[in-house]
Amino acid sequence: MYIDQVKTIDIPSHEDSRGILSAIEQNIDVPFEIKRVFYIHQIKGTRGNHAPIDTDELLIPITGSFYIKVFDKTSSKVFLLDNPTKGLYIPRLIYLEMYDFTENAVCLVLANTKYDPKQYLRTMDDFLTYIE
Amino acid sequence: MYIDQVKTIDIPSHEDSRGILSAIEQNIDVPFEIKRVFYIHQIKGTRGNHAPIDTDELLIPITGSFYIKVFDKTSSKVFLLDNPTKGLYIPRLIYLEMYDFTENAVCLVLANTKYDPKQYLRTMDDFLTYIE
Repeated sequence: MYIDQVKTIDIPSHEDSRGILSAIEQNIDVPFEIKRVFYIHQIKGTRGNHAPIDTDELLIPITGSFYIKVFDKTSSKVFLLDNPTKGLYIPRLIYLEMYDFTENAVCLVLANTKYDPKQYLRTMDDFLTYIE
Repeated sequence: MYIDQVKTIDIPSHEDSRGILSAIEQNIDVPFEIKRVFYIHQIKGTRGNHAPIDTDELLIPITGSFYIKVFDKTSSKVFLLDNPTKGLYIPRLIYLEMYDFTENAVCLVLANTKYDPKQYLRTMDDFLTYIE
């Protein structure tokens, strides 16, 4: 199933007496070129609620935790993101909902595209029609 | 002076009832291609204490705050990073020291190179000799 391409990625992390350094290199630790980096913070309610048409992403819970539910045409899965050394790879054309953010949660996202608002399906109906 | 190339960059940020989304696109919001993303967390003591030979960076205080002192051959400057919608651009061949991290501090770094340990000058003496 297409949804099986959504997967947890261990982020190479180096811990010593000074703390932890976690690093992602394009085309090595993520299967794409990193053209855009964004982060959502001071989060209230839900985020996502869309499917990117041409964007592959890696999501990382930098602090705090949240849930993410992903959908393909026929199935769904829920992931808890609560470890800043693990990211969730989500390829294009997966519908996603993010919810139950802790108060301190920050979600970092690496993406393979620059932002184009036309390249998002913003309702489940639009998503299901598009992938029909 | 070369140190004057170190500068604060306002990160395009969109706030609505769901929170804040801050985004950086390569070659637009930072003057380089983003080949590597890393973040330091659970920080104790100081970080940095080196000068990259070929790496330009954007540093962002995702949560918490810290100070950073930057040096070129003849001068130094101190910046307080405490706003997740502002980053500090630091070009290559600037020596940097980071300190006084708050307990919750996370520093996100976007870089124009993949990591090569040979491309760092790890003492002030090595730095001053190199740029002589």
